[in-house]
Amino acid sequence: MKTYIGVDLGGTNVRAAKVDEQGNLLQVVKQATEIDRGVDHVIQKIISMIESIDGYEQCVGIGMGVPGPVDTKNGKMMLASFLPGFEGYPLVKHFQDHFHMPVYMDNDVNVACMGEAMLGAGKEHDSVYYVTLSTGVGGALVIDRKVVSGAHGFAGEIGNVIIDRNREDISHLNVGAVENEASGTAITRKGKALFGEDQIAHAGDVFDLARRKDKRAVQLCSDATYDLAQLFSIIAHICDPEVFVLGGGLMKGKDVFLHALIDQFKQLIHEGMRAVEFKEAQLEEPGIVGAAMLVKAYEGRNV
Amino acid sequence: MKTYIGVDLGGTNVRAAKVDEQGNLLQVVKQATEIDRGVDHVIQKIISMIESIDGYEQCVGIGMGVPGPVDTKNGKMMLASFLPGFEGYPLVKHFQDHFHMPVYMDNDVNVACMGEAMLGAGKEHDSVYYVTLSTGVGGALVIDRKVVSGAHGFAGEIGNVIIDRNREDISHLNVGAVENEASGTAITRKGKALFGEDQIAHAGDVFDLARRKDKRAVQLCSDATYDLAQLFSIIAHICDPEVFVLGGGLMKGKDVFLHALIDQFKQLIHEGMRAVEFKEAQLEEPGIVGAAMLVKAYEGRNV
Repeated sequence: MKTYIGVDLGGTNVRAAKVDEQGNLLQVVKQATEIDRGVDHVIQKIISMIESIDGYEQCVGIGMGVPGPVDTKNGKMMLASFLPGFEGYPLVKHFQDHFHMPVYMDNDVNVACMGEAMLGAGKEHDSVYYVTLSTGVGGALVIDRKVVSGAHGFAGEIGNVIIDRNREDISHLNVGAVENEASGTAITRKGKALFGEDQIAHAGDVFDLARRKDKRAVQLCSDATYDLAQLFSIIAHICDPEVFVLGGGLMKGKDVFLHALIDQFKQLIHEGMRAVEFKEAQLEEPGIVGAAMLVKAYEGRNV
Repeated sequence: MKTYIGVDLGGTNVRAAKVDEQGNLLQVVKQATEIDRGVDHVIQKIISMIESIDGYEQCVGIGMGVPGPVDTKNGKMMLASFLPGFEGYPLVKHFQDHFHMPVYMDNDVNVACMGEAMLGAGKEHDSVYYVTLSTGVGGALVIDRKVVSGAHGFAGEIGNVIIDRNREDISHLNVGAVENEASGTAITRKGKALFGEDQIAHAGDVFDLARRKDKRAVQLCSDATYDLAQLFSIIAHICDPEVFVLGGGLMKGKDVFLHALIDQFKQLIHEGMRAVEFKEAQLEEPGIVGAAMLVKAYEGRNV
């Protein structure tokens, strides 16, 4: 069976694994990224980690997920807030020159979408839109096993999509951007404002209050749900995917919002689009498995 | 040189042409659609029209543009408001069986986008987002010479994208849908409300008043421009195209709104996305040439 190297390069940790075609992790190595020690140090670390994997030379190629938009044509990060120094660095070329095998890189949300499209909730579908509802809100589109990364790597930066322009200006994002209004961070912020700093540590606390029928918490969740429904409606009118795959920590509160979200979404689209499915993300390790799946998806293709 | 048949099937007229690889129209035939005489009549008419074209048998294939969303997998129209009876009809199969050559069909906006991507304003670009600003607002995405039609043919139905939920409910579209607020129809409606039914026949009259610095007309155009800027920002965050190609009758008023639109758009996106270009559509016959280009684009591909 063919095997692939998947690398999940984060601001805190880097993990590398040998992954088979079914997404099984055959061997995993993990280290602290130590970005403060510089780009060369991090790159050398990743190389050593890959070389420590048994039989890495027999793998088809290397796939890498990184936090931030990627210029996939040139194999460089466009922005690297969590990995200072990596912006513009020819990472793909560097790895190709070292390992003499195909190397692909994309941002971590795109990579997770590829994982779900190949092996997870999207595997029966030709077009998969993945949305991660977490501290932020991110999205990715995979059509026929190809990531739509965009010309500048910004495709799927849906956190900045305006869902209601009549809101407060609270961040560097657009006024009324969905990430300001319905992300984990937003729900936490709004919860703290309503219930006090000491009552709300994270969005889960707001969901708990909503489960206990606290009216203000129910309203907060209901408002955020509608904001998300509008986001999904906007995405559907632009991409019309076969399936939405939902991941991220907020899905722990899906009992609070998911049913209403889908109902409201269906009111905001054309009737002929209502066949779109909503599924929960399935992969336990979307970052590392998805990265490996970049290689499988693009094997033999002129990407 | 290779040639292709392009068919532009509209509710009023149907046109068929032989088109070469450079988009030259070598021969064009046109007839009234006569949809009231039934689907079989229209289909037989199109067949006769194609067969009346010199050397049609030597063409590589047939491309067809139709007004409404298309299930491109099964070659059927999903909705056919302007062509009653065509909804669900296996049009592509029918033509394939008759002509024994490749047949492709997509909606007219997607087809125009393909034309612009292959031969027009988008021909230097790998990802082209086409927006038609006309009586309605429509969009289409072509990536690497493939139309993103969506799972149900509704990709690019951007007229229904909400740009401000706090507006009036005035049509079957979503409240605050951009087509209700910034299309030719919308600008005309708002112009009539401000200046009287007899003063405004179409959006061009509003543009004329704005050119003469009428304050209310300037404000109306400015508001619609901002609505459009927000739409483009939303599309960019989802697709991140290399270029936006703008077509449709409203572009006759581009001197009134285009510069401001681009400026405002740039305020509503991440800095790294600002390299996106705005170009005016170039093809004189996007419907028929774009339809022919479907064949050229998909030749030898497993679409």
